[in-house]
Formats: sequence, structure tokens, C-alpha cells
Amino acid sequence: MKIAIMGFGTVGTGVEEILYKKREILRKHKLDIEIDRVLIKNIGKKRNPFEKALTFTDDFDEILTSDVDTVIDVTTSLEETYQRMVALMKDGKNVLTANKAVVSKYFEELNDLARENEVYFSYEAAVGGAIPLIHPLMEEALFNNMDKVFGILNGTSNYILSKMEMEGASYEDVLKKAQDLGFAELDPTADVGGFDSMRKIRILSSMIYNAKINEEEIPTFGIQNIKKADFDFAKNIGYSIRMLAKSELKDGKINISVIPSFVNDEFFAKTFNETNAVKVWGENFVSYELKGPGAGRLETAEAVVRDLLRILSRREIPAFYDGENHYEVENILENKFYIRCEKVSPALKDLIKFEKVCGNDHFILTKKVSLSSLKPILIDLGDFFLAEIEEDI
Amino acid sequence: MKIAIMGFGTVGTGVEEILYKKREILRKHKLDIEIDRVLIKNIGKKRNPFEKALTFTDDFDEILTSDVDTVIDVTTSLEETYQRMVALMKDGKNVLTANKAVVSKYFEELNDLARENEVYFSYEAAVGGAIPLIHPLMEEALFNNMDKVFGILNGTSNYILSKMEMEGASYEDVLKKAQDLGFAELDPTADVGGFDSMRKIRILSSMIYNAKINEEEIPTFGIQNIKKADFDFAKNIGYSIRMLAKSELKDGKINISVIPSFVNDEFFAKTFNETNAVKVWGENFVSYELKGPGAGRLETAEAVVRDLLRILSRREIPAFYDGENHYEVENILENKFYIRCEKVSPALKDLIKFEKVCGNDHFILTKKVSLSSLKPILIDLGDFFLAEIEEDI
Repeated sequence: MKIAIMGFGTVGTGVEEILYKKREILRKHKLDIEIDRVLIKNIGKKRNPFEKALTFTDDFDEILTSDVDTVIDVTTSLEETYQRMVALMKDGKNVLTANKAVVSKYFEELNDLARENEVYFSYEAAVGGAIPLIHPLMEEALFNNMDKVFGILNGTSNYILSKMEMEGASYEDVLKKAQDLGFAELDPTADVGGFDSMRKIRILSSMIYNAKINEEEIPTFGIQNIKKADFDFAKNIGYSIRMLAKSELKDGKINISVIPSFVNDEFFAKTFNETNAVKVWGENFVSYELKGPGAGRLETAEAVVRDLLRILSRREIPAFYDGENHYEVENILENKFYIRCEKVSPALKDLIKFEKVCGNDHFILTKKVSLSSLKPILIDLGDFFLAEIEEDI
Repeated sequence: MKIAIMGFGTVGTGVEEILYKKREILRKHKLDIEIDRVLIKNIGKKRNPFEKALTFTDDFDEILTSDVDTVIDVTTSLEETYQRMVALMKDGKNVLTANKAVVSKYFEELNDLARENEVYFSYEAAVGGAIPLIHPLMEEALFNNMDKVFGILNGTSNYILSKMEMEGASYEDVLKKAQDLGFAELDPTADVGGFDSMRKIRILSSMIYNAKINEEEIPTFGIQNIKKADFDFAKNIGYSIRMLAKSELKDGKINISVIPSFVNDEFFAKTFNETNAVKVWGENFVSYELKGPGAGRLETAEAVVRDLLRILSRREIPAFYDGENHYEVENILENKFYIRCEKVSPALKDLIKFEKVCGNDHFILTKKVSLSSLKPILIDLGDFFLAEIEEDI
């Protein structure tokens, strides 16, 4: 079975290592996998593959015109990768990807394309790393109405939050450390701004509801402005702070958001470091919880290999997502919120249930209010940190 | 696609309900499933199926000679069901089962038989109920060395333990309540004696190590003698008590046991009611954790339906288990233990690190000692409660 890989960064090298390290046992199970070639940008760069004879190319057409069965995408680019996926699927090649940005933006298009061209399209590695998540949820989506999913879906921001909590460190220091350790990007906006989580909750939600959700419909708040004082305040009233991606389908309406949240449950509040945590609710069970490494070289490669083996042995689920259901994104999102800011506008004043002032900072707990009515008020506050109070998960 | 069901108890009715309730959506995915007939013992008993026209029979041969593709076993008998599974597979029928006793006792035979007859044999519902567990672990077993698995695998005993802990109730009262609620058997030995957990850890371990483990090799201790005082003692030193099934492969040797354990971690110690919890360690990740309903009508039916859909769409993993690896069951199991007993023998005296006497009860913490050297000493103690102290999971 000949495959190709697009990209040879952290995850790509992990996939290559697993496939060649485990070659004998895979062969025993009739999975004799050969990496035909690997697409890279800079052909001159020194590489150190597990299999020394690995072939590299910087010419996408070589992959497109090759006779490989399946292409693994571990790139991070958006539009270019999307166009390549389209070309590959139209050519009858299965595509599996770890690229959550592409999956989230083009979920409908890619699923339609896979169906039209009778190829497999899978994305286990796009959400939740090594946790077996996407495929089990796909299976369930066929016969079980799932109506709610909450998750800590971004490892970097959870690392920062839990380090700040445990070590009393500042946001800047922990971010710097995460960057030094190589698991936060130099531009960390996608992670700390909540956009990575937003993409992942869009993917999970669309999949289990079989309904389209636009990225723009998901209110997304990040942790860039968080301070040690926020943790102190939260701790004082019995909470931790975690960035939650939340989605619920009720009475034909979807409520969905990504927002730092005050949590005091056993599951999310006790999720530390880069760990991801997902809780799913469905009609055949109350809920179940999955927790594990959401990122990492072999951890993500693990998810890619799961997809690959299913596709090569024709055990993957054919693209079932057709967005047949149309639900309004309602986003009432009514709850109590925590706001730390320096200026308190008259509009905000009306919503205050509790206020503590310390130096320039106002620490505020609001009355029950909808996020949408809160949003215009936030604009006037200058720098602020917002979190939702999750009393019950 | 015609299938048959053997057994129509709690789980059987759940499976039937899901299949007919979801018939339209399953048809849309080219899974037009018809239950040809259901094997029951008492043909005279009034049944209340979801599909009123469902056909019942008490004649196994009708199933064996029918043209059904796949047979779902949701019986609880051991030898009879095993013989029937053998006959079905030899006849070319796929078998999937929720019967953990059969799977555990005849794991090698059933996997061999499936391979020889080129049929599918699957058992997602045998361990962990609705938690996606068996199939994801099967996938991983193909390319990832997993070397450790710990679990709370029995819902009934965990219900009893957590109720005793939370409500300060007695073992007898909680057991009675569980029996009244219908999720403890009138003879609860399999659950509270640890034998159900023992079967499940045998299945999980054999699967991920691809090695035979005999049920008799697994030291199994139950909770029948537990008292409120044990929880008081544990709480005093910072622990909860849970029944853990534990298995580890290290340097080619297996250590495996089922034993009440003092735990103070966030995962197992905070597992309440009938919930199951499983933690798996492997070479490509540190560990991941799964938690959810381990039993229940629709919860277990859910796992059965997962298996069924995979088999019918040929997405199940062919029997890969061949017990190729031979590992010694070493069972050093050296740790500190908690023992409550009325008589303290001289041999036990030598092992005591801490002792408190209250009325007739001796509450003892031992030095580090192996379970195998402790075992002969326990015999002389009369009624006792034993738990292992898990300092680090």
C-alpha cells in the first residue's frame, strides 16, 4: 500500500517513525505500508527520517500524479492545503488530515467532495490528539442523538492556565516558558485567543449534530489579558479558570462558545498542563468523559496512524456528514460572568452583583446576563478579562 | 441485513429499541437491519418489544440454520453460550457479545475460531459499557505498545463503595438498595467479590499485550467485608477506597490483580456511583483516561450497536489476537496494604507499620510487602478487609 505525506514537521516525523518502527507487525496484519514520498517546502533542508531511504519532493504534482492510495496531510497552511485536498480527492485519493483549520473552515466542502468521489476523508488528529474521539463520535452519530459537548480543546492555553494556577506565575512568564519548550508558537494568538478551540468545537458540533455552524457564529474569548489576580479571585470563591469550548443543541437551537470559565467540577477543573478533556452527552447515556494528551509529536501521530490504518483496511466511516440538519445558532448563553477591568461604564454598573476594587482593578461578578447583551458593553472597557461562571457541568 | 439476537433481557431490549427507533437514519447509511428472530428461554413469557412484529423462538437451531449474517449474544450463561458461539462461527456467522464471562474464559478459542472461519468476533459491550474502549484499544494494539491499564470496571461495587463513602451508610444497606434498584444481582458475588472486574482486566490485558492470561492467575479480592470504619480510617489519612483492576507489563513480566485500593488521585478517587473509569498507558503517549457509564440498558446496548454497525459495514477489526506473546505472570505486587481484622497473628505482627485498635477491630497499615507473601497470612485472620495503598497512579 503506497501512501504519501504532505508536510514533515513534528507530526509528520512522528507518523513516519511509527509506520517504519512498527512495519513488521503491520505487515503481519496485511498492512504493508510504504511511504512513496513526502512533500516538503524546502528540499534543501537536512532531514533526519527514521527510514533513511525516504523520498522527499517539493513538487505537489508528483504526489497528485502518483499511484498512492491515501495522502496524509500534516501541513498547517489553510488555502493551499485546501486546494490540494480538493485536487487529491477529485483524483480518487483518500485524504486524512491533522489540519484543524482546513477541516473547520471547509467541513461541508470536504465531506461533500469525499462522498462525490467515493474516497475517505478523516481527521482524527484534528481534535483531541491521542484521545480516541473523532471516530467513536462518528460511529455514534449514526444512531445516537448527542446534544451537548464541552471540552478543554487547546493544550497550550490549558498549560498556561494550569501553570499560572499551580505556580502563581504571570501569564507572560508562563507563555515564554511554553514558547521555549516549543509547544507555544511565537505568535500564540490561535491558541491563547481561543481560535484553535473554536475550530475544534465547530468540528465536533457539526459532526454530532450533522449541521453547519459558521466559525463566525462562535463567540470566542481568549486568555491574553489574564492576570494572577484573576486566579486569586477565582480561588477565593472556590473556582479554577479553564478555557472551555461549549456547545449544546436544545429544542432545535444551538448555543456555542469558547470562553475562559470559572469551573469547580472534578473533570475540567482538574485538567492540568497540555491535557485535553472532552465530555459528551447523548440520549443513550448521561455522559462520558475522555481525557488525555491533546498534542505532542507521537501523540498526534498516533491519531493520524489510527485514521490511516482504518482507511487502508477500509474500516473508516465513509463521509456521512451532509449538514442535513438546519439549526439556528441561538447563543442566548445566559449566565453569570466575571469581569476584571479598569473602567466601569454605566451600562456595566447596572449588571454588577458583586464588585471589589483593588488598585486600578475592578473585580466584578455580574448578575445573570446574556453574553450577547454583555458584548457591546465590553467594548467600552479597554483591557479586560472575561470569564463565565460554570456552576454546574 | 438480517441479524439475530440471543437473549432478550435488559440489554437485548435496549438493542432492539435502538435498532428500530433509528431505522430510518440507519437505512440512509445503507444499514437496513432486520432482526430475523430473537432466541429466548421462556417462549410463553409476555414480551414488550419496540417492534411489535418481532419474532421470538426458543429453538437455537432456528438461528443456526437461518441465513442471518450476524448474531448478537446478550445472554449471561457460560458453557451453553460458548458452545452456541462455536457453532455459529463454524457456520460462518459473525458473533458479537456482551457476555464478559464467556469472552474472558474462552478468549483464545473464540479469537482463533473467528480467524479460522473468517468471521468477525467482537465484544465492545463486555467491558466499559458505553465508553468507547475495546475497539479503540484494538486499533492501537496494532501499532502501539501499551504496557499498563488500570480500571474501575465494575459499576455495582463502585456504586456501593461511593455510596458508603458519601452517605456513611453500611455495606448491607447500600447493597440492599442496589438490589432494589435492580443493578445488583440477588447473588452479588460476581460484582462485590471482584470476579467481574477480574474477567474484564483479563480481557483488556490479553488484548493489549496479545498474550494469554489465565483467570486463576489474577489475585482477586472483594469488598464483602468492608465496613464504614474502613472508610473512616481511609479518609483520616487522605484516601478514598475503590476496587481497582490493575495490570502492568514490564520487562516481559505481567503484574495483574483486582483489589480494593486506597486511592487519592483525581481520576479514580473521584469516580462515583456505577461509573466505570479506565486509564491506559502506552509508548506513544503517557496515558489517557476514559470515564462513563459502565452498565445500564441503553448504555450497554449502545456498545452492542457500535459493534454491530462496524461488523455489518465490514469496518470491524478482524480477530487479531493470537496470544503470540508469552509473558510470565510475575505478580510481585509489592506495596503497602491496609488490613482490618479481629485477630492478629504473629506473622502479621511482623509486617505492621501502624496499628490502631478500636473495640474488636485492629486497623493495620503494613510495611511494604508482596501480596503473595501476605496471602498465606490472611488465611489465619478470619473475617478481614484488605486494601492496597495506591500512593501514585
